[in-house]
Amino acid sequence: MTATILDGRALAKTMRAELNAAVEEFKTKHGIVPTIAVVRVGEDPASVRYSGTIQKTAAKRGMESALHTLPETATQEAIVALVAKLNADEGVHGIMVQEPLPKGIDEAAVKAALSPDKDVDGVHPVNAGRLAQVAPVGRPPMVEPFFVPATPAGGLEILKRYGVELKGKHAVVVGRSNIVGKPMAMLLLRENATVTICHSRTADLPAVCRTADILCAAVGRAKMIKGDWIKPGAVVIDFGVNFVDGKMCGDVDLETAQEVAGMITPVPGGTGPMTNVMLMWNVIEAARRKAGA
Amino acid sequence: MTATILDGRALAKTMRAELNAAVEEFKTKHGIVPTIAVVRVGEDPASVRYSGTIQKTAAKRGMESALHTLPETATQEAIVALVAKLNADEGVHGIMVQEPLPKGIDEAAVKAALSPDKDVDGVHPVNAGRLAQVAPVGRPPMVEPFFVPATPAGGLEILKRYGVELKGKHAVVVGRSNIVGKPMAMLLLRENATVTICHSRTADLPAVCRTADILCAAVGRAKMIKGDWIKPGAVVIDFGVNFVDGKMCGDVDLETAQEVAGMITPVPGGTGPMTNVMLMWNVIEAARRKAGA
Repeated sequence: MTATILDGRALAKTMRAELNAAVEEFKTKHGIVPTIAVVRVGEDPASVRYSGTIQKTAAKRGMESALHTLPETATQEAIVALVAKLNADEGVHGIMVQEPLPKGIDEAAVKAALSPDKDVDGVHPVNAGRLAQVAPVGRPPMVEPFFVPATPAGGLEILKRYGVELKGKHAVVVGRSNIVGKPMAMLLLRENATVTICHSRTADLPAVCRTADILCAAVGRAKMIKGDWIKPGAVVIDFGVNFVDGKMCGDVDLETAQEVAGMITPVPGGTGPMTNVMLMWNVIEAARRKAGA
Repeated sequence: MTATILDGRALAKTMRAELNAAVEEFKTKHGIVPTIAVVRVGEDPASVRYSGTIQKTAAKRGMESALHTLPETATQEAIVALVAKLNADEGVHGIMVQEPLPKGIDEAAVKAALSPDKDVDGVHPVNAGRLAQVAPVGRPPMVEPFFVPATPAGGLEILKRYGVELKGKHAVVVGRSNIVGKPMAMLLLRENATVTICHSRTADLPAVCRTADILCAAVGRAKMIKGDWIKPGAVVIDFGVNFVDGKMCGDVDLETAQEVAGMITPVPGGTGPMTNVMLMWNVIEAARRKAGA
C-alpha cells in the first residue's frame, strides 16, 4: 500500500484564498483591518524567520501586522509592560509572543499577562482551560469562546478537510507539549475520538503506536516513528520539524511509513504550511469577536 | 486472586488528623481561620446533603464555613453578584459553587466569575488550564499555582499513599467530565503515566479497559465495568456514585472485579470519603497562598 499524501501545502493555498475573502468581507463590513502584533525578545534565528513569515503572510492577506522587538537583555517588567500596552491598544486584535524567551524570563507570567481575547496563539492558561473544558462537538460548548494553538488546529483541519472520520477512532498522540501534543489530544477528544497521550516515559511506544487509527507525532526527534510502528491503513499526522544534514524531516520516517499508512502528512509540506494560515484565522476570529460579529 | 481493598475511609481518617494539625498550625502562625464559602442555588437534595457535610467537616477541623443560599428563581446577575462579593471578602479563602445550578443559568459564566485564587473546587478555566499546561512532576511547574477538583485529587492521593507506581504505566480513564475524568487524566499524565481517555463513543470499551494497568471509572453507570474488563493485577479507582435499589454502588462491579484486580477502591468507602478531605486541603492551601505561607 502507498499512503495518500495529505497535502498541507495545497490545503493551505486553498485556505489562504478563503482567508483573503474573509479579510475583505470583514474590512468592508466593519471598516477595520484585522491586525496582529508579534513580540520578539532577542534575535533567535528561527524566531526572526518566523516573524518575517507572519508579516509577509499578513500583508498578502490584506491584514496588518506590527513586529515589536525587545533586546535579549529586556527585563521581565519590560516584556510584561509591552504586552499590557498591546492588550490596551484598540487597534490590535491578536498578540503573539514568540518563543523562546531569553533565559531568566518567567514565560508563564508573560503568557498569563496576555489578554485571553487577543491570545491568538492559544497559550494563555484560560484558553488552554476552555479547550480542556469544552463539551464534545455537537453539544453546546459550555465555555466562553477560546483560541487553540495554530499548529494542532492545522493538524485537525487537515483531518477534517480530507474527511477523516474521528468519532470512535483510537487516536494516539506522541508528545505532550503545551503547544502541540496536549492541545491536539484535547481537540481529538472533543471530536469524540478515544485518545491516548504518549511521551518519553511511555513503555513500548511502538506497540502503543500500532494501536492507533490516527497517529499524531509531536516529539521533535527526526524519523523516530518507523513504518513498522504504524497500523496498516492508519492516518498519520506528523508535526515534527527536524533537520538532518540540513534537510528538513518530520518525526515520522516518511519512506517506510508511507508504505503502511493509509494517509500521511509529508514533512515538509504537511502540517507546517497550515500553522501560519490557522494563526491568521485566529486573528480574523479575534477581530470578529471584538466587533461582535 | 482477591484484590487489596484501597480503603478510602481509613485514608480519609488519617488525612483528617493531618488536616487538624495543619489548621492548628496555620491558625497559630497567622491568627487566621481558614474559611470556605459555599454557594447553593435552589434546594437540590444531593446538594443540600453535600453542603451539610462540608459544613460539618469544616467545623470538626476547626475551620470556618458559610453557606450562602439563593432561591431556585435567582437570576444570573444575582448569582454572579454573590460570587463577586465573596471574591472581594478578605475573610473568605475558598469558594465552592454547588452544582447543579438551575436551568437557564449560564454555568460557565458563573465559574468564570470566581476568583481563580479562591476556586478551591478547581472549576475555573484558568485552573483547568494550568493543570493542562503544568510540566510533569520532577520539573519546574512552568505555571502559576492552581487548584485541582477534589474528587480526582482524592483518587490520585489514594494511588500515591498506597505506593502505586504510575510512571510509564498505562492509565485508562473512562469518562471525560470536567470535574472527574479529564482532570484525572491530566493528573496521571503529569505523573508520567501513558493516559487513554475513553467515553461513550469509544469502540470496544472492554478491550481498551483490559489494556489498563491503572483503570479509573467515572461514568455514572452502575456496575458497568465487569471483572472480565480488567487486566489481572490492575489497580482500579472507582469514582462512580450510583444507587441501585437504594444501595450505593460504583461504576465497577466490585464483586467480579475484586477477583481480578490487584487493588481496588470499594464504593462506598473508596474515593467518596476522600473528596471532602481534599476540598478542605484546598481551602487551607488557599489560605496559605493568601498569607504568603
